[in-house]
Amino acid sequence: MLEELKIKVLNANLDLVKNKLVLFTWGNVSAIDRKIGLIIIKPSGVSYENMTAEDMVVVDLNGKVIEGKYRPSSDTPTHIELYKANSSIGGVVHTHSIFATGFAQACKPIRAYGTTHSDYFYGDIPCTRSLTENEMEEYEKNTGKVINETFKDKNVSEIPACLVANHGVFAWGKNAEEAVYHATVTEEVAKMAFITECLAPGIGKVPGYISDKHYMRKHGASAYYGQNNK
Amino acid sequence: MLEELKIKVLNANLDLVKNKLVLFTWGNVSAIDRKIGLIIIKPSGVSYENMTAEDMVVVDLNGKVIEGKYRPSSDTPTHIELYKANSSIGGVVHTHSIFATGFAQACKPIRAYGTTHSDYFYGDIPCTRSLTENEMEEYEKNTGKVINETFKDKNVSEIPACLVANHGVFAWGKNAEEAVYHATVTEEVAKMAFITECLAPGIGKVPGYISDKHYMRKHGASAYYGQNNK
Amino acid sequence: MLEELKIKVLNANLDLVKNKLVLFTWGNVSAIDRKIGLIIIKPSGVSYENMTAEDMVVVDLNGKVIEGKYRPSSDTPTHIELYKANSSIGGVVHTHSIFATGFAQACKPIRAYGTTHSDYFYGDIPCTRSLTENEMEEYEKNTGKVINETFKDKNVSEIPACLVANHGVFAWGKNAEEAVYHATVTEEVAKMAFITECLAPGIGKVPGYISDKHYMRKHGASAYYGQNNK
Amino acid sequence: MLEELKIKVLNANLDLVKNKLVLFTWGNVSAIDRKIGLIIIKPSGVSYENMTAEDMVVVDLNGKVIEGKYRPSSDTPTHIELYKANSSIGGVVHTHSIFATGFAQACKPIRAYGTTHSDYFYGDIPCTRSLTENEMEEYEKNTGKVINETFKDKNVSEIPACLVANHGVFAWGKNAEEAVYHATVTEEVAKMAFITECLAPGIGKVPGYISDKHYMRKHGASAYYGQNNK
Repeated sequence: MLEELKIKVLNANLDLVKNKLVLFTWGNVSAIDRKIGLIIIKPSGVSYENMTAEDMVVVDLNGKVIEGKYRPSSDTPTHIELYKANSSIGGVVHTHSIFATGFAQACKPIRAYGTTHSDYFYGDIPCTRSLTENEMEEYEKNTGKVINETFKDKNVSEIPACLVANHGVFAWGKNAEEAVYHATVTEEVAKMAFITECLAPGIGKVPGYISDKHYMRKHGASAYYGQNNK
Repeated sequence: MLEELKIKVLNANLDLVKNKLVLFTWGNVSAIDRKIGLIIIKPSGVSYENMTAEDMVVVDLNGKVIEGKYRPSSDTPTHIELYKANSSIGGVVHTHSIFATGFAQACKPIRAYGTTHSDYFYGDIPCTRSLTENEMEEYEKNTGKVINETFKDKNVSEIPACLVANHGVFAWGKNAEEAVYHATVTEEVAKMAFITECLAPGIGKVPGYISDKHYMRKHGASAYYGQNNK
Repeated sequence: MLEELKIKVLNANLDLVKNKLVLFTWGNVSAIDRKIGLIIIKPSGVSYENMTAEDMVVVDLNGKVIEGKYRPSSDTPTHIELYKANSSIGGVVHTHSIFATGFAQACKPIRAYGTTHSDYFYGDIPCTRSLTENEMEEYEKNTGKVINETFKDKNVSEIPACLVANHGVFAWGKNAEEAVYHATVTEEVAKMAFITECLAPGIGKVPGYISDKHYMRKHGASAYYGQNNK
Repeated sequence: MLEELKIKVLNANLDLVKNKLVLFTWGNVSAIDRKIGLIIIKPSGVSYENMTAEDMVVVDLNGKVIEGKYRPSSDTPTHIELYKANSSIGGVVHTHSIFATGFAQACKPIRAYGTTHSDYFYGDIPCTRSLTENEMEEYEKNTGKVINETFKDKNVSEIPACLVANHGVFAWGKNAEEAVYHATVTEEVAKMAFITECLAPGIGKVPGYISDKHYMRKHGASAYYGQNNK
């Protein structure tokens, strides 16, 4: 079932390697078929090298495995929380990409220091609070919940990534491919923000009207970047 | 029309990828034919992977598309301002290369800390002021204007690159190929300057007579670097 | 003798290059056959490029060469001390990987700042004290001893790597392949910890219950990461 | 003439690219035939991509071109000063490798923070004083002289590299290949020293007895590293 979507999820997982976002098996991508309410996700701890579309696991929104010979990624409950709370999300990615994870470990957001950031994110990429000891029970589910909590007053379509404190990156998009794209941009702007903070500690963010301008020229109602294919 | 120049502009765009200056479609190169006053520029938001010379767009100095099936790069008005104000410029490049953009986000120039820099730039690579809110109208055109403003007392032939505050890099040269060369050097000296500022915060620039010497041995009237082909 | 193990040790040495952990010949991997008490180790100062399984050297636990046309790695006595003191270790790796060595030179542990670290290390990767002048006699043997001293109250199975002050990294595992895996993770978490310390000097470690959770979900009695093949 | 040595010098120049020490044409390697007192050096400003052994230039110790269709590297007078003052030097390399140049621009030595450094350098890699304005006349010759001045109380065989303030790296060895090897190690230890200084500003050098031990186990009279081929 969902053979086409499995291929897309496989390719998105392989793009994590190609874009140098993961070491070994340290990442996972999923996508959801909203009509039938099923998720395709990478199997847990399986090497990328020989992974095939057939190895992808089908789970429902309760985390029950519907098809697949492997266990799904142990982060599946996080993906599910994101899909359940945000109907606009069609694909989810988790990585430990180096610079973004450096920020997550510092419990700091990736600030909107420039237009590279504003082209894709309408404001800082936030960092969640640390989970409490009680939240260790159902850890992965609570990781999803704390991302949703962090986005209570934000729009997941406008800021398609979140740092999880002490942990790493979750990014998303309208499908698996776009989610990987956003995870890649997250790492790129993390590198730039790192350099900026080293060069000018305490520098403020880019003026709001500049980040608005950049976000809007790509994503606003009268966007004029690209070829009208939005 | 201008088929040879289209190939050169295509190749210069591909060199941005080869020289690791751009991620995805985040950069653009143009060149001008000064005799007929037409510019060839990369189309907006088109992937580098399958781009052909035919995809390049021909625009005039008012920004009107003369030939091409795609929209030109959304940064076209910036390129045009640079061509209009500086007759010695034959090619223009825009990148968000990581270290140089880190400086631009910090609103700091790339200082002339050494001879690597002085071999190509006669003084600091300056950083523009931030654009004002009023300048968001005609943003790309004003980006060109603020670069020209920054170079009011400088020579674009002696300092062939500029950081745009909160944004990224524009570099130029006598043609597209040289513009890419200068964008590549900008990123390399940005890396070195970053390391130097981390190691020795507050260090001054290289003594003026050393940077003069290096610039002049390559570019002065009695240059002796290379094979007399200047 | 031990032809199969020689191939594994050769491949593990080549993986050091593939994983970008060594420059030139600056690393070595060994493995032990516990039944017969013999160690296979890389020859000293031989280039990786043409190395064959036949070039591996067989030594006993007294450091005596049992088979092989080359001298064993000059670090052999360090490997031997680790094997003698820790019966659970089946493979040992030594590298000068850049970021981890940067920490070793700073005489600082790689702190457990996040779950990437906690997935593989149950606590900080410690850094030994500096060796004393007296310990320069039998330097390599004493390097092994100071690692064992550093682990007096730690478990080598829970923290499979150690920084040696002013020097570099030793990592280990149940076999040569796992030892290389742990050396690779050590460099990756060193990069992340470096970024974190630059961004947030003086930040504390990840809360203990989070690192416990991550370590235990992969390594505890009820681990649920991966495919039950532990 | 000297066809074999030309091939060695060509290959050493190409290794600069392979070892990622140079961008474009920013480096040069030479070697000397001590018997006949002639130097083979890379031509100035010629691209590495199509360079052949025939393109190498033969100069004498007065800098006179003896054979070759191109001008020699503009840094030739620096190489000559090094060969004239130090009879043990058989090959010289100049690079602007990024981290080492970052130190040179900071006018700081690369300190002996660990055994990676001590394996090849018996003490800090020093940084020259800045040249004076008067020394700009015969700049390249004076660059060689200031390196020799810096080594007045040091041994070029024990410390086979020097940073030139505000400029870059010169390294040397008994032949061109070894000179490139030392230039490569210089960049590697510069990276490590950078990380160490960021992590632990003001940290002291490795204890002298440790660096002695490491240097001596590779280079001393009773060296025991490698395969007796020293």
